[in-house]
This record gives sequence, C-alpha cells and structure tokens, in this order.
Amino acid sequence: MTTLGLGPGPEFDRIRAIARALGPLAAGLGDDCAVVPDGSGPSLVVSTDVSVEQVHFRRDWLRLGEIGWRSAAGALSDLAAAGAEAVGLLAAVTVPKDATEADLTEVMRGVGDAAGSVGGVVLGGDLSSGSAWSLAITVIGRAVRPLSRRGGRAGDGIWVSGALGASRAALETWRRGKEPEPAARRAFARPEPRLAAGQWLARRGATAMIDLSDGLAADAGHLAAASAMELRIELERIPLATSVVGPAKAAGITPAQFAAEGGEDYELLATLPGSFGAAEAQAFHAELGLPLTRIGALAPGSGARFLVAGAEVALAGFDHFR
Amino acid sequence: MTTLGLGPGPEFDRIRAIARALGPLAAGLGDDCAVVPDGSGPSLVVSTDVSVEQVHFRRDWLRLGEIGWRSAAGALSDLAAAGAEAVGLLAAVTVPKDATEADLTEVMRGVGDAAGSVGGVVLGGDLSSGSAWSLAITVIGRAVRPLSRRGGRAGDGIWVSGALGASRAALETWRRGKEPEPAARRAFARPEPRLAAGQWLARRGATAMIDLSDGLAADAGHLAAASAMELRIELERIPLATSVVGPAKAAGITPAQFAAEGGEDYELLATLPGSFGAAEAQAFHAELGLPLTRIGALAPGSGARFLVAGAEVALAGFDHFR
Repeated sequence: MTTLGLGPGPEFDRIRAIARALGPLAAGLGDDCAVVPDGSGPSLVVSTDVSVEQVHFRRDWLRLGEIGWRSAAGALSDLAAAGAEAVGLLAAVTVPKDATEADLTEVMRGVGDAAGSVGGVVLGGDLSSGSAWSLAITVIGRAVRPLSRRGGRAGDGIWVSGALGASRAALETWRRGKEPEPAARRAFARPEPRLAAGQWLARRGATAMIDLSDGLAADAGHLAAASAMELRIELERIPLATSVVGPAKAAGITPAQFAAEGGEDYELLATLPGSFGAAEAQAFHAELGLPLTRIGALAPGSGARFLVAGAEVALAGFDHFR
Repeated sequence: MTTLGLGPGPEFDRIRAIARALGPLAAGLGDDCAVVPDGSGPSLVVSTDVSVEQVHFRRDWLRLGEIGWRSAAGALSDLAAAGAEAVGLLAAVTVPKDATEADLTEVMRGVGDAAGSVGGVVLGGDLSSGSAWSLAITVIGRAVRPLSRRGGRAGDGIWVSGALGASRAALETWRRGKEPEPAARRAFARPEPRLAAGQWLARRGATAMIDLSDGLAADAGHLAAASAMELRIELERIPLATSVVGPAKAAGITPAQFAAEGGEDYELLATLPGSFGAAEAQAFHAELGLPLTRIGALAPGSGARFLVAGAEVALAGFDHFR
C-alpha cells in the first residue's frame, strides 16, 4: 500500500489497515488533504484534525483561547501544505461537563481567530458534552493546483520554512514541571499556519509538500513514501529554533536531532526543482518574513535518511500510538 | 440572533453565545449544513457531527461497526436535509487506549459502509488516542439548490418521512437494563440517512427541510425560528414506530409525546407548498418505500406548537446539555 503515502509507524499502520478493509471506499486516506472532485476552476481541498486534552495539550499549559487557536491552526496547516487558500472550517467540539458557556466561547474565539488570521471563517460545527476537551476541526480550502506529498522528483531540493524544534522544547519543558521560554511557549500555543508560504511555494513550482505535524523525521518519511523517492537530509542543515538548546541538552541529544524528531512545528517541507536556489529563498524570506532553508535532496530510492558528515543517523518520529 | 435558525434550549444558547463572540467570523453557524461558495454548477454543502461514547452511545449497547455506521449516518443525515447527494466524508476518530487495530478497523468499516450506502467515500481522516471512543464525522455533498431550515412559507404543509420514536424506544429500554426489540435496536444502531428522500422532496418543491436529530419537538422549533414562522403540528398525526408503545407506557407518557420528544430518528421534516397532497405522498411512498405524513401547517407567527384536539401541549426536545 505504498500508494497511501505514509511512512513507518504504528499510527500509520492503523491507517493502512483501515484502507485495506475499506478498499475502494477509502478514496482519500493517507494524504494531508483530500481533493474534492469539482467542475472547472480551483479545486476544493479538505482535511480534518482532532486535538484531545491530555493527548495533544493540557489545561494547565494553555489558556482556553490558545486551545482553540492551536487546534484550528494545526488543521489549517494542512491547507498550507496543499498550497491552498482558506475558505473556512467546521468545529466539532466536545466540552467537559464542568466548563461554562464562557469557557466554550473563549475556546471558539481562539478557533475563530485562527480561521480569521488566514482569511477563513467558521462555517459550522457541532457540540457535545464529554469527559474532556476535544476539538475536531475540518478545514476547507481552494487551490488551482493542489499539492500533495506525491510528486517529488529525483534531483529536487528539499526545503523547510522557519525554524524547528520550539514546540517540542515547550512540551518537554512543561513535562519536566517548568515553564518554557516565551518563544517556545508561543510556538506550541499559537502556531502560525503557513498558508501564504504554501501558496508562494506552489506558485514557484514546488513538486510536493507536507506540513511538519508528526515531526521532520516522520513527515519526511511520508513524503518519501508518497513520492516513491529517497529523501537525503543533512541533519546539520536543519534550521533550529534557539529555544531548543536547553531542552535538547536536558534530553541528552543534539539540538538537530531534538528538532528533527519534534512534532507540531507546523512549518512546511517542500521539494523544489534544482533550479530553485539561494536567490529564490531570499525572495521568500523578503516576502514572507520567514527563512527558507535547503536541507537536502531527493534521489531514486526509498525512505528518509538523515546524515551527519555523510553517515546515517537513526531518528524517531512523533506518534500518538507509540 | 433569530437569523441563527435555532429554537430554545441550553445547547442552542451556547451556539448563540459563540456566534455573538465571533461576529462576522461565524459565517455558517446554526444550520444543518454550510454552503461553500462555489463557481457555476451545484454547490458544495458541508456539515460536521460528533458522536461520543457514554454520551451518544455505549459500548455494551452497540457492536463496533454499528458505532461507526451510526456516527456516519447521523452526519450524512444533514446532507439529506439539504436535499444533497453525498460526495464523501472525513472521520476524526479518537480511539481508547485498550482498543486494538482490529477494533478501529471494525469501527471504520461501519463508517465506510454508511458512506457507501449513499454513494459516498471516505475522503480522509485523523486518529488520536484518548480515554473513550469519539467520532467527529464531516460530510461533503452537492446540491443544485441546497435546502435549509429557512424558507418555509405561511400555508405550507409540514411533512415527515418514516415513523418516529424507535430510536428513543431503544435508548430507554437499554437504560432500564433490558434489550430493545429488534426494530427499535436497528433504528438506534443502524439509522438510514434519507438522502434519496431529501433529493426527492427538494425536486418536488420543498421550501425548507431539517433532519430529526434533536427530536421533532426541538427540530420543529429550529425550523420555526429559521423560517420566522409558526409551526402548528397535530400531535395525533405523528407517524409512530410500533416499538414505542411499550417504552412510552413505561415512561408514563403517550406514544405521540414519546416520539415527538425522542431524538436521533434521522427522518426528514419538510415544508411543502399547499398543493402537495396525498397523491404526491403516495408517489413518495411508491418510489422510496417510506411513508410521508402531513402533520401540520405553517402560519404567520413564531415557535413550534403541538396540538391535541386544538389544545396546545408542552413538549421538550433532546439536548446534550440539559
């Protein structure tokens, strides 16, 4: 089932098992977004993402508005990976029994703000009571030529937006009972979905794209599987958030490994033709206020390989089922 | 906020509060489906619905495949109310930690079967671990002229498909520690989303439509609010599932009240011009194998009124926040 476009991991094994069981009914599994067949004009792209209290976040880490923002931003990030613009989102929200109407409104204000930040609206939703907060956000976007994880070609460069690892830095600092530094906290609590960057990269000829939700190590594996290519990534080229240094030291690994294995950065990993170079990356930086860094290249083969001075390093991805 | 198209009730108060807080960002709250602005041709309609273990169902009542079917069917029912055909759905599934890969596959087989039963596919999804099963299903459909709760006119007849109350009959029988009769159990475990019926009614000039998920009493209130009309419904005309008799007696209320207050029947409530009569209902029955019953009429005014021999009876709707 390599056509599913998923790398190794127990969560992805589950998705593969579902796809086998459903056969032709499972039309769109294994990509960030599904493309809804449409008439002429831009295609609609849709994606759904669920954020669960105690799994994706904890109440003592985040304000209620941040829970809403983060859940919506994580889903909107899938539209960024498709090079799409946002139409809007639907929010299916499970509300703990002790939450007030004001609490729910605060959560939904965060959801609405995230949608509004990329030009979208809240199209609809559903409410249920339950034992903990849970937000299932479905995003709807439009793209003339939707990108996916498929399409990377031998010789393409591998590029990543922004800097990685800050979200994991916040997570591991909280888990050690401490308060993360403001930049790390913000990366976790209020990630910016990269829709403008995704549209820019799509216009400039990106051949494949994925957002870094499972972490670079896992997501590079997905793109490799979907494009049926080998991704060769030089670990030392990965752009690092400054806030990873302390937490990486505490974890006893290098900052680059810490960042490459960390999930939920919501930056974009794009493959671009070999002709795309430093000048183009500079234009990206100037227009979007965000670095764009070449971290490797595609070659015939399979899997994502992380190299330090030419030697391969084994990395793990973030997985909710591990 | 009467434009929200919601009747009275604490769940709907929460939605009203969210709409007030979000202002123009809350473009589509308060309807079964949102219509995605599109170019020419049929419009896309979308809706999301969440089903939570211990709130909407219990594991000792349903098989895993039924949990999947029921969650998907409840969401697909919103497409029926829009008179839409199904394109597909996305499933954001929270999986309890003790569930196996086979359990999840069984749940998703139910989801896929429900989608396939109305010509749709599974377009995508997301998985998370959690403390209990929860399925947030987002459905996508297409309609040339999407119907909503708005649009009912004075003089229109109020019609309902199928027979009501069997789902509540099952629920209350389980709650009394007994096993429901097969027809009631099936109504709860494997409801049939009425997409073909909804398309038929849309073609025959339905002016407004809603699916009976919150129960006739509550849903009639929503349609009344959205259409800015009074719904006058004769309680004795409500078509009753035969399985309601015993449970209604056990609850100490009439079968008609039991059925009108019961949620999750997933039948359609439609308003149709006065010219639509018995002959048309017979054609509906012949084509769809389902009764269609006139239970009242729209008049200038507001709210849903239930009458027995001309006297009003107070009814309650089903509400997860009550």
